[in-house]
Amino acid sequence: MANQIAEKIRVFSLGGVGEVGKNMYAVEIENDILVVEAGLMFPEDDMLGVDVVIPDTSYLEQNKSRVRGIIVTHGHEDHIGALPYVLKKVNVPVYGTKLTLGLVEDHLKTTGMHKKADLRLVTAGSTETIGDVPVSFFHTNHSIPDCVGVSIETDQGLIVYTGDFKFDQTPVDGKITDFGTLHSLGEKGVLCLLSDCTNADRPGTTPSELEPAKGINRVFQEANSRVVITTFASNLFRIQQIIDASVKTKRKITVVGASIYKTIQIARRLGYLRAPKNIFVKPEEIGNFPDEQVTVLCTGSQGEPMSAISRLAKGADQKLSIQSNDTVIISATPSPGTEKSVSQIVDFLYKIGCEVITPGQEKVHVSGHASQEELRLMLNLLQPKYVVPVHGEYRKQFALQQVAAEQKVKPENTFLIDKGEVVEFAKGQGRVSGKVPSGNVLIDGLGVGDVGNIVLRDRRLLSEDGILVIVVTLSKKTGAIVSGPDIVSRGFVYVRESEKLMEEANKKVNDTLEKCMSENVNEWSSLKSNVRDVLSKFLYEKTKRRPMILPIIMEV
Amino acid sequence: MANQIAEKIRVFSLGGVGEVGKNMYAVEIENDILVVEAGLMFPEDDMLGVDVVIPDTSYLEQNKSRVRGIIVTHGHEDHIGALPYVLKKVNVPVYGTKLTLGLVEDHLKTTGMHKKADLRLVTAGSTETIGDVPVSFFHTNHSIPDCVGVSIETDQGLIVYTGDFKFDQTPVDGKITDFGTLHSLGEKGVLCLLSDCTNADRPGTTPSELEPAKGINRVFQEANSRVVITTFASNLFRIQQIIDASVKTKRKITVVGASIYKTIQIARRLGYLRAPKNIFVKPEEIGNFPDEQVTVLCTGSQGEPMSAISRLAKGADQKLSIQSNDTVIISATPSPGTEKSVSQIVDFLYKIGCEVITPGQEKVHVSGHASQEELRLMLNLLQPKYVVPVHGEYRKQFALQQVAAEQKVKPENTFLIDKGEVVEFAKGQGRVSGKVPSGNVLIDGLGVGDVGNIVLRDRRLLSEDGILVIVVTLSKKTGAIVSGPDIVSRGFVYVRESEKLMEEANKKVNDTLEKCMSENVNEWSSLKSNVRDVLSKFLYEKTKRRPMILPIIMEV
Repeated sequence: MANQIAEKIRVFSLGGVGEVGKNMYAVEIENDILVVEAGLMFPEDDMLGVDVVIPDTSYLEQNKSRVRGIIVTHGHEDHIGALPYVLKKVNVPVYGTKLTLGLVEDHLKTTGMHKKADLRLVTAGSTETIGDVPVSFFHTNHSIPDCVGVSIETDQGLIVYTGDFKFDQTPVDGKITDFGTLHSLGEKGVLCLLSDCTNADRPGTTPSELEPAKGINRVFQEANSRVVITTFASNLFRIQQIIDASVKTKRKITVVGASIYKTIQIARRLGYLRAPKNIFVKPEEIGNFPDEQVTVLCTGSQGEPMSAISRLAKGADQKLSIQSNDTVIISATPSPGTEKSVSQIVDFLYKIGCEVITPGQEKVHVSGHASQEELRLMLNLLQPKYVVPVHGEYRKQFALQQVAAEQKVKPENTFLIDKGEVVEFAKGQGRVSGKVPSGNVLIDGLGVGDVGNIVLRDRRLLSEDGILVIVVTLSKKTGAIVSGPDIVSRGFVYVRESEKLMEEANKKVNDTLEKCMSENVNEWSSLKSNVRDVLSKFLYEKTKRRPMILPIIMEV
Repeated sequence: MANQIAEKIRVFSLGGVGEVGKNMYAVEIENDILVVEAGLMFPEDDMLGVDVVIPDTSYLEQNKSRVRGIIVTHGHEDHIGALPYVLKKVNVPVYGTKLTLGLVEDHLKTTGMHKKADLRLVTAGSTETIGDVPVSFFHTNHSIPDCVGVSIETDQGLIVYTGDFKFDQTPVDGKITDFGTLHSLGEKGVLCLLSDCTNADRPGTTPSELEPAKGINRVFQEANSRVVITTFASNLFRIQQIIDASVKTKRKITVVGASIYKTIQIARRLGYLRAPKNIFVKPEEIGNFPDEQVTVLCTGSQGEPMSAISRLAKGADQKLSIQSNDTVIISATPSPGTEKSVSQIVDFLYKIGCEVITPGQEKVHVSGHASQEELRLMLNLLQPKYVVPVHGEYRKQFALQQVAAEQKVKPENTFLIDKGEVVEFAKGQGRVSGKVPSGNVLIDGLGVGDVGNIVLRDRRLLSEDGILVIVVTLSKKTGAIVSGPDIVSRGFVYVRESEKLMEEANKKVNDTLEKCMSENVNEWSSLKSNVRDVLSKFLYEKTKRRPMILPIIMEV
């Protein structure tokens, strides 16, 4: 054992620190690399046209032979959403609980990897040996069932990862956090705790899921109308509460939105939703029931313009629409960046004349993440020597460092790492040391990583002032213009109202080409750059806009 | 008088209802049209490349000869920002208080209208006859000095417009709202109240500007470092408090950001800022003072990527940069839609290592708009028969209707109008009746209104998947291909990694053209649509993307 104590352990994040989403953490113990989570992120505003973003996994690809497996702690997209792409490059076993793997399997269909993946079932309380490393799992509370935290055994002590968690004393499924195990992990000795820091800046305790249950029940009971309720498609505990409230108020439920429909199907098949037979009714049949016996459960809590609630509100769904006497519950708070679109949908619902209930008015939503008092409890149970805040932007990581300091983890023992930064442990001492490659891989349609900075820059330019294409045909023999120049524009000005401008532009181009020829400038690249410069200047003077200018020269 | 009582009065909004920004209201009394406010709005996310948005004023243009003047109640951009464009089309006298007109004059320089505008000074307490209509002004509290509300006298009673207001019992300039005048207007008889509804959904009372003064003073005193503070460029009361706090803590102030610099200049020149001589220092000279004697006042409280604080944080400003031992105060809350960019800047500041103080941590910002108790007070003072909630989205208008109902204005007497909807008063009875044209006019560079739906749709398409331009030259005589087809793409894929795809695309186009020719399809429009269809289908199959496809045919 003596020489094993000299082992180096490296802990790093390929996503999920300094940002919200695409969680991916790795623990490297000599010859074994264990990966925890493989999540996706939705694109930032400047990632035009991009569908989703996943972590850059080139380090894992380069060290493929040493990657022993990917552990996923629960079935949310920011934890499992990158698997369809990552497994294509590094197809290692995936470890997760029953519900998590059910959702993973469905996700893998995106790239057809569901047929090739090696999914391995684990349960809270069990221990697996992954590579040479014993890994055990403990039950935690979050907004979806079957969540686990992970404890990785090393000769220098345990490395514990909380996963997304809060301490819920009255969870929807009755399964409270496994305090005994957490305490015994603490007794055993935790070298490093990777802890969820989402709400590290919130004092107090996050309310139990029981709170929204009460709020939702109250609204369901008081509403003498249909209840339309929207939440995250993957918030299965909330969905359970909506089913329970519907049962109590004798309502049938119709589900609108592909993602929420699929989640419910998977969860029911695997036994994670309690619902009486025949409570679910197709949208086209819901009209057969009196209003006060109807629940419409749909997606769109983030104000997505194409979501179910948006379609229902705007009358764009053939089977169902939101009416003035409906009661609408928004059972979620907007994610960063979606505040405005959510408020636009709420405004739209008010205009229809609905009763609209948001978390600001009634307790119909609570967070799934631990606030400061819960983080303190976790720190007290586990008594880690080192802390790495994960799952949050830098100011949240910073906030957890402050909380940890108050729980006797010295500030210098909490590492506020960025993506790719490595925390290295040797002889029980940790320090930040070196970097591995990390970054964003953008997925646009079927393309994984073929949209990079140049493409995004072009999309941005195109989006701001459009494009002008200038085509001219030159004679191979004489170099003279035989056709054109023709100018075609898109996204620049409304052409019919700008005929004069375009005529002048055409003349500018023509003059420039003729001037070039008279001066024997006939290299195409020079011709093009001359045209581009002259036209760009002319258009900026006239319009103060800078459209992309694309000269194309043909030769006959 | 008898026949004058039969007069029709029309009240409508060309902007500012059902939205945030571009306020513009109109009161039409027989032959006179009085306009109140001419504001701008910043573009929505889907208005790609647009700089600002102003109201569609075609109704005013069509009835130019009857427009008697534009009253502006204070100097914020959402109230005066459209004047440079509106006056170009309808150059009528502009009425405002001293500070407001000072800011208007500067704004008008955008379009050179400062030389042609007829600016007429009014004071709180004064009465002007505009057209044939007596209009009086009363002092109100907001976040900028010299704010007024407007009372328009008609034979059916007063039409009162609050402007942006709150009731501040301890305002920065010591001038409290003119309660006596408000009460006497109420006694006289208010037919219709157009009231600010920004915070109509907030219970209680908006705190006085004294609150942020206390918070800012505390931070300034405790900080043993430079204080960098960002707020709205036009929040002059906050700027006054920052100057006062700097005086108290013996700090010099340097101002970074063109808009805030200009506002301070104008306000000082007109006597609306108290500041000792020599307290302002140039950015390049601030290094001569010890850190604890320095205030950096800058723009960027809305997370604008090009703002002063963003440049200072990212080291992109040559003269000054934010350091790890600075204390940074964000003295503003994010406007809707800017939450994410603000939090990104805050995150960036944390990474630098600054002490960052936001309104969530310390009371360094309060709203400038009345909450429910203040709205009740306004309603009680004025006792209007009818209410039109203005300056807010629909749900805020709705909230004010509910508040008004509790103050004995029957819900059917509160009109929740959309832009263009007309409230008509005859014989003291109001009803919604008819519409005038209304909408958005988009300003992009020098272009006013030349960016419409088609241009925006093209920009959106271009921003999502880029463009492919296909150029082919055909022989005039034979119709055969003499050059091309050439394909050029921008914003679609990273070309070097997609050579094969582009080769295949080229072949597809070639095959399509040849097939068309062999089938004697030689109308250009058919050729183009064939190419577009085939290529679009091919690319979607291969990439699941839908770039814009622009076929250009040349002839020699």
